[in-house]
Amino acid sequence: MIADSPTAPPPKQRLLSALDELSRTGSVMDVGVNALLAKAGVAKASLYDHFRSKDELVVAWLDARQTAWFSWFETHIREHAGGDPDEQIDAAFGFLESWLGRDDFSGCPFLTVQLQLKGTSHPASQQARRYANRLHAFFHERLVSLGADHPERLASALLELYLGAVVVQELGTSDRLARAAREAARTLLDVACDASVLRKDV
Amino acid sequence: MIADSPTAPPPKQRLLSALDELSRTGSVMDVGVNALLAKAGVAKASLYDHFRSKDELVVAWLDARQTAWFSWFETHIREHAGGDPDEQIDAAFGFLESWLGRDDFSGCPFLTVQLQLKGTSHPASQQARRYANRLHAFFHERLVSLGADHPERLASALLELYLGAVVVQELGTSDRLARAAREAARTLLDVACDASVLRKDV
Repeated sequence: MIADSPTAPPPKQRLLSALDELSRTGSVMDVGVNALLAKAGVAKASLYDHFRSKDELVVAWLDARQTAWFSWFETHIREHAGGDPDEQIDAAFGFLESWLGRDDFSGCPFLTVQLQLKGTSHPASQQARRYANRLHAFFHERLVSLGADHPERLASALLELYLGAVVVQELGTSDRLARAAREAARTLLDVACDASVLRKDV
Repeated sequence: MIADSPTAPPPKQRLLSALDELSRTGSVMDVGVNALLAKAGVAKASLYDHFRSKDELVVAWLDARQTAWFSWFETHIREHAGGDPDEQIDAAFGFLESWLGRDDFSGCPFLTVQLQLKGTSHPASQQARRYANRLHAFFHERLVSLGADHPERLASALLELYLGAVVVQELGTSDRLARAAREAARTLLDVACDASVLRKDV
């Protein structure tokens, strides 16, 4: 509970931050309004001044989360790869290693809301699809530039490895899952770009 | 609502069947007791005669679902592969294609409950980990038999492709996701077993 004070962030920001914190221990879809208000230190009327419903707050939070996530992702890639699309794909899997290796890793809310809601008409589900489409497009564009075989299919396989690593990490059954995904991606890229024989013994 | 009659299944079975049906449109964790009783045509007292709580029913359902799922999986593999571990892994991905291609595909409840619950202490989460561990062991045992390089890491990558395909299918962003996973698995297996050069142009 943050006390109202001249230096406290405005209620809208406090609601988003409270949801962010609550998202670490469970699905954002399951956060109750009262728990949210208590965590944010905000009155119910103030919630409904800013959002028509708790679901609308969840969608706004997912939208902000998506912007933040891709900003971390793209910064990591800029810092770890030059202009070569092959290096950029590898750096994307390097980001996965950093992300899944963080002590505060708490899963991917886009996957969580999609699996929980199932249907695709809910605005939160649309956010989840936008996230996955953007990641798929990242891989696909670079595979096309590389002249990889079957870039559409390989982009899907890389997306499966990527999001699969997130899910298996949440299951907590094995170690070094992101490393396994990164090395599998390396092999798939090499084979698709006809470089497998050259790189295999490096 | 199933009317009570001499031929109706017993209440316990009706509760499990009702949860099965409700699992197709949302997370089993979110099914309300009243909706469940209405769908099963069972009185509340009867639910608590058989289960201490709705969560206990969910865990019993996940346990039955796991037995059924691995029975479908193993039957498919027996019907589509001989004793060769390489063929068996390929057939496992063939099962994924059949499963994800079904009109009534409705996702994987193990992943859904795990992502929704996050923590690992809930008995439903333990069921999810058991499912993933069993699938990982399936791949790992066969990779060891094949003498594949780094069988532990490759088993993780195959599990990531497998469960990643399920998750991406639920997101509904692309077609032929299981086929993409199957072909990626084929490439990874070939490279790990040093057969890539032989098979690449087949």
